[in-house]
Amino acid sequence: MIPRYSRPEMVAIWSPESRFKIWFEIEAHACDAQAALGVIPKANAEAVWRAKDVTFDVARIDEIEAVTKHDVIAFLTHLAEHIGADDARFVHQGMTSSDVLDTALNIQLVRASDLLLVALDRVLAALKARAFEHKDTVRIGRSHGIHAEPTTMGLTFARFYAEMARNRARLVNARAEVATGAISGAVGTFANIDPSVEEHVCKMLGLTPEPISTQVIPRDRHAMFFATLGVIASSIENVAIEIRHMQRTEVLEAEEFFSPGQKGSSAMPHKRNPVLSENLTGLARLVRMAVIPALENVALWHERDISHSSVERAIGPDATITLDFALHRLAGLVEKLVIYPENMLRNMNQFKGLVMSQRVLLALTQAGVSREDSYRLVQRNAMKVWEKGADFKTELLADPEVTAALSPAEIEEKFDLGYHTKHVDTIFARVFGT
Amino acid sequence: MIPRYSRPEMVAIWSPESRFKIWFEIEAHACDAQAALGVIPKANAEAVWRAKDVTFDVARIDEIEAVTKHDVIAFLTHLAEHIGADDARFVHQGMTSSDVLDTALNIQLVRASDLLLVALDRVLAALKARAFEHKDTVRIGRSHGIHAEPTTMGLTFARFYAEMARNRARLVNARAEVATGAISGAVGTFANIDPSVEEHVCKMLGLTPEPISTQVIPRDRHAMFFATLGVIASSIENVAIEIRHMQRTEVLEAEEFFSPGQKGSSAMPHKRNPVLSENLTGLARLVRMAVIPALENVALWHERDISHSSVERAIGPDATITLDFALHRLAGLVEKLVIYPENMLRNMNQFKGLVMSQRVLLALTQAGVSREDSYRLVQRNAMKVWEKGADFKTELLADPEVTAALSPAEIEEKFDLGYHTKHVDTIFARVFGT
Amino acid sequence: MIPRYSRPEMVAIWSPESRFKIWFEIEAHACDAQAALGVIPKANAEAVWRAKDVTFDVARIDEIEAVTKHDVIAFLTHLAEHIGADDARFVHQGMTSSDVLDTALNIQLVRASDLLLVALDRVLAALKARAFEHKDTVRIGRSHGIHAEPTTMGLTFARFYAEMARNRARLVNARAEVATGAISGAVGTFANIDPSVEEHVCKMLGLTPEPISTQVIPRDRHAMFFATLGVIASSIENVAIEIRHMQRTEVLEAEEFFSPGQKGSSAMPHKRNPVLSENLTGLARLVRMAVIPALENVALWHERDISHSSVERAIGPDATITLDFALHRLAGLVEKLVIYPENMLRNMNQFKGLVMSQRVLLALTQAGVSREDSYRLVQRNAMKVWEKGADFKTELLADPEVTAALSPAEIEEKFDLGYHTKHVDTIFARVFGT
Amino acid sequence: MIPRYSRPEMVAIWSPESRFKIWFEIEAHACDAQAALGVIPKANAEAVWRAKDVTFDVARIDEIEAVTKHDVIAFLTHLAEHIGADDARFVHQGMTSSDVLDTALNIQLVRASDLLLVALDRVLAALKARAFEHKDTVRIGRSHGIHAEPTTMGLTFARFYAEMARNRARLVNARAEVATGAISGAVGTFANIDPSVEEHVCKMLGLTPEPISTQVIPRDRHAMFFATLGVIASSIENVAIEIRHMQRTEVLEAEEFFSPGQKGSSAMPHKRNPVLSENLTGLARLVRMAVIPALENVALWHERDISHSSVERAIGPDATITLDFALHRLAGLVEKLVIYPENMLRNMNQFKGLVMSQRVLLALTQAGVSREDSYRLVQRNAMKVWEKGADFKTELLADPEVTAALSPAEIEEKFDLGYHTKHVDTIFARVFGT
Repeated sequence: MIPRYSRPEMVAIWSPESRFKIWFEIEAHACDAQAALGVIPKANAEAVWRAKDVTFDVARIDEIEAVTKHDVIAFLTHLAEHIGADDARFVHQGMTSSDVLDTALNIQLVRASDLLLVALDRVLAALKARAFEHKDTVRIGRSHGIHAEPTTMGLTFARFYAEMARNRARLVNARAEVATGAISGAVGTFANIDPSVEEHVCKMLGLTPEPISTQVIPRDRHAMFFATLGVIASSIENVAIEIRHMQRTEVLEAEEFFSPGQKGSSAMPHKRNPVLSENLTGLARLVRMAVIPALENVALWHERDISHSSVERAIGPDATITLDFALHRLAGLVEKLVIYPENMLRNMNQFKGLVMSQRVLLALTQAGVSREDSYRLVQRNAMKVWEKGADFKTELLADPEVTAALSPAEIEEKFDLGYHTKHVDTIFARVFGT
Repeated sequence: MIPRYSRPEMVAIWSPESRFKIWFEIEAHACDAQAALGVIPKANAEAVWRAKDVTFDVARIDEIEAVTKHDVIAFLTHLAEHIGADDARFVHQGMTSSDVLDTALNIQLVRASDLLLVALDRVLAALKARAFEHKDTVRIGRSHGIHAEPTTMGLTFARFYAEMARNRARLVNARAEVATGAISGAVGTFANIDPSVEEHVCKMLGLTPEPISTQVIPRDRHAMFFATLGVIASSIENVAIEIRHMQRTEVLEAEEFFSPGQKGSSAMPHKRNPVLSENLTGLARLVRMAVIPALENVALWHERDISHSSVERAIGPDATITLDFALHRLAGLVEKLVIYPENMLRNMNQFKGLVMSQRVLLALTQAGVSREDSYRLVQRNAMKVWEKGADFKTELLADPEVTAALSPAEIEEKFDLGYHTKHVDTIFARVFGT
Repeated sequence: MIPRYSRPEMVAIWSPESRFKIWFEIEAHACDAQAALGVIPKANAEAVWRAKDVTFDVARIDEIEAVTKHDVIAFLTHLAEHIGADDARFVHQGMTSSDVLDTALNIQLVRASDLLLVALDRVLAALKARAFEHKDTVRIGRSHGIHAEPTTMGLTFARFYAEMARNRARLVNARAEVATGAISGAVGTFANIDPSVEEHVCKMLGLTPEPISTQVIPRDRHAMFFATLGVIASSIENVAIEIRHMQRTEVLEAEEFFSPGQKGSSAMPHKRNPVLSENLTGLARLVRMAVIPALENVALWHERDISHSSVERAIGPDATITLDFALHRLAGLVEKLVIYPENMLRNMNQFKGLVMSQRVLLALTQAGVSREDSYRLVQRNAMKVWEKGADFKTELLADPEVTAALSPAEIEEKFDLGYHTKHVDTIFARVFGT
Repeated sequence: MIPRYSRPEMVAIWSPESRFKIWFEIEAHACDAQAALGVIPKANAEAVWRAKDVTFDVARIDEIEAVTKHDVIAFLTHLAEHIGADDARFVHQGMTSSDVLDTALNIQLVRASDLLLVALDRVLAALKARAFEHKDTVRIGRSHGIHAEPTTMGLTFARFYAEMARNRARLVNARAEVATGAISGAVGTFANIDPSVEEHVCKMLGLTPEPISTQVIPRDRHAMFFATLGVIASSIENVAIEIRHMQRTEVLEAEEFFSPGQKGSSAMPHKRNPVLSENLTGLARLVRMAVIPALENVALWHERDISHSSVERAIGPDATITLDFALHRLAGLVEKLVIYPENMLRNMNQFKGLVMSQRVLLALTQAGVSREDSYRLVQRNAMKVWEKGADFKTELLADPEVTAALSPAEIEEKFDLGYHTKHVDTIFARVFGT
């Protein structure tokens, strides 16, 4: 986690204080369930809740851990300092550390997912607003970086919206993947603890009991979770690359918002760099980094080995914090993106009507001109545009062989941009609903 | 794709013949829709179906492509050779190559998914059968590769079953991700073709129309697809590692089936190598290889660039063929896996009851012995086992300080394996339903 | 391996015929060494060489393998069919299959490296030629995709040359990593074969004896090899991205060569797509795919497990064949790249001298104008260029506050491109030597 | 970077204080060179060195950056606060931020490499010491996890030594890759600064001038650097997996050192978990994470884009800190590893001499028994061992058909472990020199 690429809300989820709070809740709910079963006295279970509003002292726990060399025991020792050794003596009974650790990790991932969903919703709202704003802003569509046919800026935003909406659905799935808890003991057999404890703890904490755990919750769930983050990150890169292209000097169809004081160079007004979208490109790589180790974490030895643990200490916070930051940066970028419709038109007309040559060709053929002749006619006029900078429509109108087949009005009609935008509403209805 | 790691059914999906057949179907259905719209004559649309049962001549198409340098045009030219140039002249009207290519790729991925689902179902059936067969076969559970507490072989299979059932659900999602088609033209605006053509083609071919495409179907879908295959592959590795561990000489709780003639070494009967599960470990890496490039494929320039194409030519067939083969290999491996319950017992008893020390410790505490004393008592008897190979229960029964707190029957009870297996039915109900 | 992305010379290295030929050579040289030691009769060793010019019958060997289920034994059986069972009886004595398989793999990798070096040399020659050709062709340098200061096209080629020269040195290292052989027996102890056999075989086949092997040659070597291919592939992507940018419609400073018949669209002369460099971008991803599994292959169980084998069957040929093809494609692309110096000038002058504003600013300061005033002066003239399309130099010459500080000649001098190119020769000398 | 997996020496390299100190040195040396050229006054250059022993105030620089939004300018402003605005006015003249940033990054990577080399040397020393200590400690070699033929523990250590020695050589290469600096201006043309400044700065800071830079130092260098760290990490995993296998309950040929107080469980003496080597397995994944993004960083747009920057802010410190920690952890682990030679013998003899069956087979054949009969003889005695737990040698000595071919002494000789260890010295000489 790099401070400059993080938001405090997400960082807070991964703080030691949050983790200890979650550990406390798991232990306290487990005591309630144990008391309900008659395994431990009700009074002791109730006593635990006295620490409900405590902010646990991380330094003190670290101090104890330095002696016990065991993080969960250190926490429990400190907890006993709050509720009294006597009342605390049934806490954690029948449980193993992993019951607490794995359930807590999943709670953190679920909470992180909830923040990511908020961030995605902000991205979606921004994309939708800009899509409708520029629904009819014509620009040239490009394949291979080469001008192809007209499209609209609104369709570009709409397509990113649809992609991010898919990512939202994927994230909901990913959240469900990790929204499980396990209180099942040393090898998952519930030998020392009744399954109803797991059920109670999970219910109170918004989780589903893991149907079958070993000592740990199976890591295919986390692999799927981080793989999904990797896909979302790649979509961020997709939007970022589009913006970087739009901003490059020769294109300049859009620019990242620059506050007056922030200008790249006061002497070189063109020197406004798309640093946010470049940064998002890099952040996407950082989030994707988590995917392979998460996949490598799935195959553990027998009922568990602990190789996954160090990996998750890193990628748990890093991937969620970075993705959260990137989504909000992306949302802000889209919200404020400065669009230059006039430059879009200028670029589209760079080849003076040539992008319409396919339509003219088709029209000639449909007017009865042979395929070969149609090509010849279009090509000889296209070449005048290409080589001498002539205007394509003017040339066509002046070419007797062309006008013999198509009336001036018919030629004019081929240059009507409405031809290309006639289905924009249909597509918008598909993407945004009616 | 490596022939020795492939099954003909999956390979067939990716053959040129299959691809051309799919291209044909897309074109023929599109003609129907165009005819229904009145854009092309009905007779021409009907004529196209004359090639319905043709197996297209790949060599001939290659020959034409060598001239035209364009695969779709080569195919269309060859198609015209079958249905007559005149009748063929409206085929592909208003479409671009990507309409055919991308829709066809998704059909291949959908068909591949269907085969993968069959393979997963075979794996699930095998795991379930072996789980019930060995529901009560006790073995030692291990954390960190070290003996922990007893569990059963059935639970091991049940856990793999649950993991593969999750993978099945993920694969169904992944299939839906790529089950879309697009007939939307050069930059996705439907400028030259009505959206109803796309709807008809998709409906006839079992796809959903892509709500918004550019020239291409968005690649976040394929990224999610291949990421999901990577997760499934990692689960295969998870099972494979377990089997490899069970088969290692010192453990020998299970062995891959060896047909009599196949023995690793006739002179060294112990030399039966877990080559199938080792192979599955490697195949998992091969499937996972597809994940990163699929993520890198998402960010295309503007309405499309073609950087993704070569990647998909490789990973499309390779990842699906390898995963399909691996799943069937895994199913066969599980179906025939030779289990050695007696070795499981032998291993569990290696430390002569020591795995029960935690229970004894707890019982002593509950019987009123102080925590410190309980530890001391357990430890001094455990040490006799560890250092001199004594039997733990015998030592406990002979220790007056222990018998002062626990009756012989109570001590006996702590060594009852039923304590550890009492919730196996509960867990099975969770995993397999009632 | 995808046929369309492969060259026959590299494919041949990985053919079964080549592999069997290498196996033969290893066995024959080993017989010589064994005979020299007196372990086997000289006559038998000599007899083996009778198969020196045999092209082994792959179908026949496959047939035998279908029975024996062992590739090396199948080969040896077939070899005996050529040299006579009696003469063949000492072949392979004291060796294990891995001695042959691993040594053969390394020979294939070494030969692949040699072809890759040839390909890299072709790339280097092309880059060098184009660098000198365009040493003084001025173009605008860009950071963040935004115009910065002038540079030359020759420097661009020179920088790619320097990068590829580094790759050449890395590949030489990578080749040395895998240029080892091992004939050390079942667990690498030489229990059944004298180390001198290994030394002889390696010497005859251009390898170094592996100082310490187990059953296998250690896989950190191969990890380093494939990691190096991944770096080279990334450099190919680097060049490809530059070309794709130069070719995009609004920039058009260069184009991939299009043969007359190959034009993207006869009617749309601007529609020439940079398909080769887009393809190279994808091929780079394919080569990089090999890196992670090669790293995962390093950690084998004890003296060997066979998990690496299936991975190498794929990535061995795939990564080398794809990289070889990509390097030659890149070389051809660079050799024939069509450069448009006039478009470079046009683009550079898009902002009518604004790229020189930094120099003017510096000059004003050095002429004694305060930093604040200098900024103000430059900025107000820059804004006229930016907002009204004026010419920067003309405006400066017409601004009395500017001319009070700088003479017209001094202002003119600031627009001298020679200022930016004065060290091109120095840099060329660094890159290409004197 | 995770505090618990880091060492202060390596963390210090990446602290803001260290970074600012390096920036200072670059600027100060550059001033010297500029003064030598007569570009700036000597007195000003000398004045800069007044800040030589300053520990820069990170909070103050952050404060300034909050206003200027530019890290290098913030630093320079703060530097001026130390040496006086007037004396500071020529600092950074003719340079761009990247000149400082990229050169500083490489200095950090070089210093990190130096620490990594120290760590590797500690690992090498530990492996060498243990190799010689256990040169003749016989253990069973295993392929596929299955007993194969005897080897020695010393050979295992020696092979890891050889692998790490290769890694050391690779790291030296990787260090050289990034040991370059660049002071070449906005697009690398030296337009505003003489190349001799770069030469001087590099010389004073132990770097080589980058032969051709753009605004940035080319990123193929860093890709190679991080790829090399990934290979080293994989070798750490290789050693870790071996130790984890040796420590698993059924094998127990070695154990990680446990200090008396650290026992996994006082009641279960067998419950000592190989947590360090499991942790190393995870740390290896974390280091490898850097490889793919480093490869993706190579292809930048034109003279530079800044997408690589955020990636390097993460992987620069993370990969080096984690690898450094892992190497020291590995060294400590190897230094203190508890080896159990008696368990090695026990495991090797698990099949009562069966591992020698190959030798007996060979001996029978050499004694003139036909291949088929030899097999039959060995197999029938092997089966008695396998099925009834007999002793192989005893059975052979009692089999008249065997003793007809081989004398008791000859049979005895086949069970001599010296046969397998006779070349250990040869191999040690290869690995460690004479």
